[in-house]
Amino acid sequence: MTGRDGGAELTPIDPSPVVILVRPQLAENIGAVARAMGNGGLFHLRLVAPRDGWPQERAWRMASGAHRILDSLTLHETVADAVADLHRVFATCPRPRHIIKPMLTARGAAVEIHAIGARALKCGILFGPERAGLDNDDIACADSLIRYDLNPDFMSLNLSQAVMIMAYEWYIARGPEEPPRSLQTNGAEVATKYELENFMEHLICECDASGFLKNPQKRPGMVRNLRHFFQRGEVTGQELNTLHGIIAELARGRKPEA
Amino acid sequence: MTGRDGGAELTPIDPSPVVILVRPQLAENIGAVARAMGNGGLFHLRLVAPRDGWPQERAWRMASGAHRILDSLTLHETVADAVADLHRVFATCPRPRHIIKPMLTARGAAVEIHAIGARALKCGILFGPERAGLDNDDIACADSLIRYDLNPDFMSLNLSQAVMIMAYEWYIARGPEEPPRSLQTNGAEVATKYELENFMEHLICECDASGFLKNPQKRPGMVRNLRHFFQRGEVTGQELNTLHGIIAELARGRKPEA
Repeated sequence: MTGRDGGAELTPIDPSPVVILVRPQLAENIGAVARAMGNGGLFHLRLVAPRDGWPQERAWRMASGAHRILDSLTLHETVADAVADLHRVFATCPRPRHIIKPMLTARGAAVEIHAIGARALKCGILFGPERAGLDNDDIACADSLIRYDLNPDFMSLNLSQAVMIMAYEWYIARGPEEPPRSLQTNGAEVATKYELENFMEHLICECDASGFLKNPQKRPGMVRNLRHFFQRGEVTGQELNTLHGIIAELARGRKPEA
Repeated sequence: MTGRDGGAELTPIDPSPVVILVRPQLAENIGAVARAMGNGGLFHLRLVAPRDGWPQERAWRMASGAHRILDSLTLHETVADAVADLHRVFATCPRPRHIIKPMLTARGAAVEIHAIGARALKCGILFGPERAGLDNDDIACADSLIRYDLNPDFMSLNLSQAVMIMAYEWYIARGPEEPPRSLQTNGAEVATKYELENFMEHLICECDASGFLKNPQKRPGMVRNLRHFFQRGEVTGQELNTLHGIIAELARGRKPEA
């Protein structure tokens, strides 16, 4: 699932929210976050007091080409500084206590973030440190909370996975959505019904010749079942050619015996 | 975002699909996949011909407690062997060519996988090796394709991220969905309207006493604006106590001057 020099192509799809990593611990995770942001079309990254300082070579190694995101990020001493120019701030936060704030799913937040962006307001999303998550002072800088709808029996969510889910939901919510089901026909020429019928005639003709359809009571049902089978999905011209060849070959093999 | 001994609690939420990693290269990724599966409530993992053999200690280190998933996985020599007992197989696959198969988004596939599970049929999802992805022979073992709706300019998707998105969608699609927006009131006692009104009276009384509302033309509008402000969201009893205290203290400070 690698992309070719995808990093060079990365540009902001604006308005896109700012991802703010609060006191991140591992440079590898910062790199993996940049990669996940690239996957989901996010671009703007801010770091608040990264534990091991910044820059860190290991982040670039983990970014898998999302270098422009790392090259463009900004460094901040406090959450307040990191959110100062933003109009709306969301905090990802598994189970806060004694707080009254709007609580959104990742999907609900994605829709809201697009609506805020459409009003030309700037949004940010806070992600806490790997072990402890955001503390109460961090959360006090946010307007709304985001809680992921995931298995409550196993909440240990990797930082870059948390960013991935949010970026994924944001990318989908930008609309128009892809249809949930379609047929993959990339590069394959779909056979016309005429070509399919031509094949069916060939098949039935040889089935008749072989005696396979010799029972006149059963023949109509058997032909119908064959039609159903070959109509089940789109067939390519290439596949029909192959099937024609098989039938011709099988018929040739039979004829000398007859 | 760590969980406490989440690994011990992990049990299958069945019917859940089998995750099949085809020729995975890095043991760290296998561990990260197990963690992502735990997050999304998946349990059944199969490996086809892992490059570095199996087991690998590094996988357990990356699983962050999802050990039961690694302990229970099965090892297979071929994709055909890994899918032999399954009824429906999906292949994750960014851009296949010359193939006609149903193509689903991750979201569409999640809905379909639940529908298949409801018929007591077993599903599997193939994920290809880190660099190359699934090859054409692998894909030929699948009924349907899954393509993620992500930034086409940056397709380098980490293996565990690919599993995370699918697990996340599966977990959400199991329904009933969480409301996309609610109010976080966990542990906080929401004030009643009586308590709020009691506070408003205290506030307005002291505003009157201080002369802040002395203009009779402007007073009704100013009081209404104050009401609007304090009605904007739910307020906790604790917050009201604090506000009462502030007003009382400010009023006390003023009185000696009067």
